Amino acid sequence: MRALWLEDQKLTYRTDLPIPQPSPGEALIRTRLAGICSTDLELLRGYYPYAGVLGHEFVGEVVEADAAPHLVGERVVGEINATCGGCDSCLGGRPSHCRERTVLGIAGRDGVFADYFTLPVENLHLVPGEVADEEAVFTEPLAAALEILEQVHVHPTDRVLVVGAGRLGQLISQALSLTGADLSVVARHERQREALAQRGIAALPEDAAPEGSMDIVIDATGAPGGFNLARRVLRPRGTLVLKSTYAGNLDFDASALVVDEIRLVGSRCGPFAPAIRLLKKRLVDPTLLIDHVYPLADGLEAFKKASERGVFKVLLSIE
Amino acid sequence: MRALWLEDQKLTYRTDLPIPQPSPGEALIRTRLAGICSTDLELLRGYYPYAGVLGHEFVGEVVEADAAPHLVGERVVGEINATCGGCDSCLGGRPSHCRERTVLGIAGRDGVFADYFTLPVENLHLVPGEVADEEAVFTEPLAAALEILEQVHVHPTDRVLVVGAGRLGQLISQALSLTGADLSVVARHERQREALAQRGIAALPEDAAPEGSMDIVIDATGAPGGFNLARRVLRPRGTLVLKSTYAGNLDFDASALVVDEIRLVGSRCGPFAPAIRLLKKRLVDPTLLIDHVYPLADGLEAFKKASERGVFKVLLSIE
Repeated sequence: MRALWLEDQKLTYRTDLPIPQPSPGEALIRTRLAGICSTDLELLRGYYPYAGVLGHEFVGEVVEADAAPHLVGERVVGEINATCGGCDSCLGGRPSHCRERTVLGIAGRDGVFADYFTLPVENLHLVPGEVADEEAVFTEPLAAALEILEQVHVHPTDRVLVVGAGRLGQLISQALSLTGADLSVVARHERQREALAQRGIAALPEDAAPEGSMDIVIDATGAPGGFNLARRVLRPRGTLVLKSTYAGNLDFDASALVVDEIRLVGSRCGPFAPAIRLLKKRLVDPTLLIDHVYPLADGLEAFKKASERGVFKVLLSIE
Repeated sequence: MRALWLEDQKLTYRTDLPIPQPSPGEALIRTRLAGICSTDLELLRGYYPYAGVLGHEFVGEVVEADAAPHLVGERVVGEINATCGGCDSCLGGRPSHCRERTVLGIAGRDGVFADYFTLPVENLHLVPGEVADEEAVFTEPLAAALEILEQVHVHPTDRVLVVGAGRLGQLISQALSLTGADLSVVARHERQREALAQRGIAALPEDAAPEGSMDIVIDATGAPGGFNLARRVLRPRGTLVLKSTYAGNLDFDASALVVDEIRLVGSRCGPFAPAIRLLKKRLVDPTLLIDHVYPLADGLEAFKKASERGVFKVLLSIE
């Protein structure tokens, strides 16, 4: 089969890979549409060691599923952490933190930029007929955005700032705007501001938020500059959500964190079911983020496009 | 009057200071007993700029209080942040974060290592007859320990580790042991372990807690080593409370914080009323932490003693 293969920080388009064999409990899935995410670009830059088929944002069709035959022929999306079910994290109700986990296209498990891939059937969620492939492919990043609302109680009266209005920042902003909170978003590029305006979300220049004014700030930049801005505009006893991984360490004034009694919350993968509900209800519209759709064979070009500044979502269509 | 005066990182015993005049709404208080805290030692080392009478842990007697004459002659303890009542923090129900605050013996307001000092009457709490001076003088640090329970929901089923078993670590440990949680404390010195044993609290050597095993960890060391240990033993989605100010910046792997979805919580001053209730009920016993009591005139010697390794609480008796 065909696939985009990562090895030694080099991505290649291969046509010589065998169709994977699902293990017991797993389904074989044919990729329909897949999304390139910042994590994919980071893997390419070597931030994490991984060799294999890249990709984890997908909507696909189940081809084979001995453990759940009713799924065959259905359109599905899927949670990316495949878990052991037996470690303290799994038994403690935190399966996405499984100590033995493999992660689709990220760690120990071939990903979705391919004709076929496998996932445990328990990871799969049916896509309702009302949700198009172009929407369903955003389920995983939208779920990650909703993880903020799993972890932090956002009050309708809160002043909330999102720092960073790229791919993930846009989905976070759309999700948080549903809370009724007083939301604004630091957006550097005109294209980002336009996408926010389409959803009626206020964009701010970087220096516009007054110091110590925000109840909750989400840093979706993954850069020290974003963190420092977030910290500066947060009020005492406010909550700062770290929503992107950072290249390298953060260095900050921990005493000020104590004196101001700040809460820092790291946030990663989130719940799929509410993401699908919001897509179905058209309460979130990710399609306005789609900039380009490439066939899998043009995957290398698609990656080049996705890494350009100001580009939102690049999709790979696999037919 | 007599006082311990800090200026240019030098502490002097002075006898030439005038008795302070309370402003409207303030009480004049005669210090009975006062405690030396790590913050006092840090002020002496120049961590914060402050010049004036040092000291903020006290039990005293109200001498004058035009705004609340019924307080005159009563024994009181007092919250250390004097607030403006009008800023967004005050109006938002976070007076201890008042932007215009003065802090007793720490910022802009002379402290309690003196014959007399002043505080707003609204800061004062009556000391019940059942609570001796030697207990009441610990109200402020015990309130700071209880702030952890204001900020974090500690479940009776949680595994909790306190890193650091000095003055504050001991009070935190006693307070947390009341939750029924599975509590242990990293204690370096035999004296610290003995004090914990007196309250039936388990002490651990530094390397004894398994990696990723704790639901909640409190770093009461204020040192990068303590933070790193706390981070290492915390489970994914766990809560790390920073309870001491740090000299200098902290440097840490923020991506790991995101991947493990860790919650960092800075924690400072806490509520007095529950601290007094716990002292009255004898549910916390701070007196076992008293190592030495000096008269005010021997204050410089008292500070020397308080900065020795392994010494718990040094008190100043003012008669």
